[in-house]
Formats: sequence, C-alpha cells, structure tokens
Amino acid sequence: MVSTKIGRLNHIAIAVPDLSEAVKVYRGLLGCIVSEPMALAEHGVTIVFVELDNTKIELLHPLGSDSPIEKFLQKRPGGGVHHICYEVEDVEAAGRQLVQEGARVLGDGPPRIGAHGKPVLFLEPRDFCGTLIELEGA
Amino acid sequence: MVSTKIGRLNHIAIAVPDLSEAVKVYRGLLGCIVSEPMALAEHGVTIVFVELDNTKIELLHPLGSDSPIEKFLQKRPGGGVHHICYEVEDVEAAGRQLVQEGARVLGDGPPRIGAHGKPVLFLEPRDFCGTLIELEGA
Repeated sequence: MVSTKIGRLNHIAIAVPDLSEAVKVYRGLLGCIVSEPMALAEHGVTIVFVELDNTKIELLHPLGSDSPIEKFLQKRPGGGVHHICYEVEDVEAAGRQLVQEGARVLGDGPPRIGAHGKPVLFLEPRDFCGTLIELEGA
Repeated sequence: MVSTKIGRLNHIAIAVPDLSEAVKVYRGLLGCIVSEPMALAEHGVTIVFVELDNTKIELLHPLGSDSPIEKFLQKRPGGGVHHICYEVEDVEAAGRQLVQEGARVLGDGPPRIGAHGKPVLFLEPRDFCGTLIELEGA
C-alpha cells in the first residue's frame, strides 16, 4: 500500500550567487511578481519568492557562515536548481513509509519546521533520481 | 516595458539514467499517476509524464546516439533537473524581447516545435541563474 501520495508542487528552489541579479532576471526579464528578500537566519538563507500562476520559485542565497547553500554554490558557481518541494498531507507518516520501503530520509529524526512554518523532511537524492526533494506537510 | 511575462510552470524535466527505476520512484514510492513511456525520436528522448495536482514532472531518458540528455548524464550519472519549462503567450515575441534586453536564446532562429507540439525556445543558462529554461508558447 502506498501511503505517501504527493500532491502539489509547492516550489522549485534555485540557489543563486547574486540575489539582486536574480531578482532582475525574474522581475525585469521574465516579468514576474517577486517579493522583497527575507533573511531566514535559522535556515542560513536569504530568500525571495517568485509568483507563477500555478506555483512559485524560491531564489536562495547563502546567509551566515554555515549556510547549506554555500557548498552547493561552490560546486555550481553560476547557480542552479537546489531542491524541489512537494506537498504531502502528513509528512511524518510519509517519512516513516518511505523508510519502510527502503528509501532514505536525510537527518536523524522527526520533521523540522521549514521556511514556511510547516513541518518538512528532505529525502536522499540518490534514492530520488538525483534530485533533492523536500516534502512539506499540511 | 516588459513584454515577456511568464505564466504557469508547465513542467520540470528530470534526466534519469534508468527510466523504469525512476517510474518506480514516482509511481511506487511517491504515489503519483505516471504515464507509459513515449519515444520521441526527433527530440532524442524517451519521456514519461508524472501528474501532480498543479503541474507535471517529465522524466527524460536518452534515445538514440545523439541525445541532448546523454551529455548531461555523463556529468551527473545519478540524474538531476535538466530544465524547467515556463509558459508564455507568444514565444516568438518573448524570444525577440529577451534578445533585445541582452539575454541569450539558444539556437539560431525561430522557435521549434517541442515535445508537446507547441513552439518552444531554450534560454542560455548563464543568463538565467544557472538553470536551463524552456519557454513554451500557447
């Protein structure tokens, strides 16, 4: 039985080396509504939301000395897709089910609270087509 | 004046080294509705659609000896996000406008017909946050 059922794509997160340049691309060149930057110190990122008609893009820039984005940008200095976030109803149950089926969840415990104030888990990219997946609960 | 205005995220394309394993991940582990594989010889890919509630994921696997996905997988053997596709009303006008504003469009001419039978253009990743963007017209 599959109890993990992903629903909406919540967002695509793109790590960028220069946030104001990235805002120019999405607001100026591509004509999108883009939020003001928000510093999320506990997540080590400064974030900007780009509104699309059916989902959103999050532009991430490292904040502080221990940012999870820093290492990514060392490997890909021009930026790139950092993760994709899918919504599930119950993120804790989804995590347990995935582990039971042999997939790996990153970290060592229950979901933590993500950038949107909701519980999230990250999945091991090697078990999911080479992409870092964030699951966000309701 | 901005005439390029992207609307919906049409799809995220993920290049995968093993299509049947990738289908198992999205259908079996993540509980999605996944199409049967379609061979698109003129695009050099075999493709599978994953339905999400608000958009779709396309899983791409190389087809033939000159596939654009082959080189990507040589660099990222485990797979990864290959491109993201945004919808625009008029892809030809959007391409002209982007070039006028100094951004680069890949290829050397008018839009070609993409995998969905609609006109598409690809944008130079170095001008768009390190991501390969496909623009799909109406």
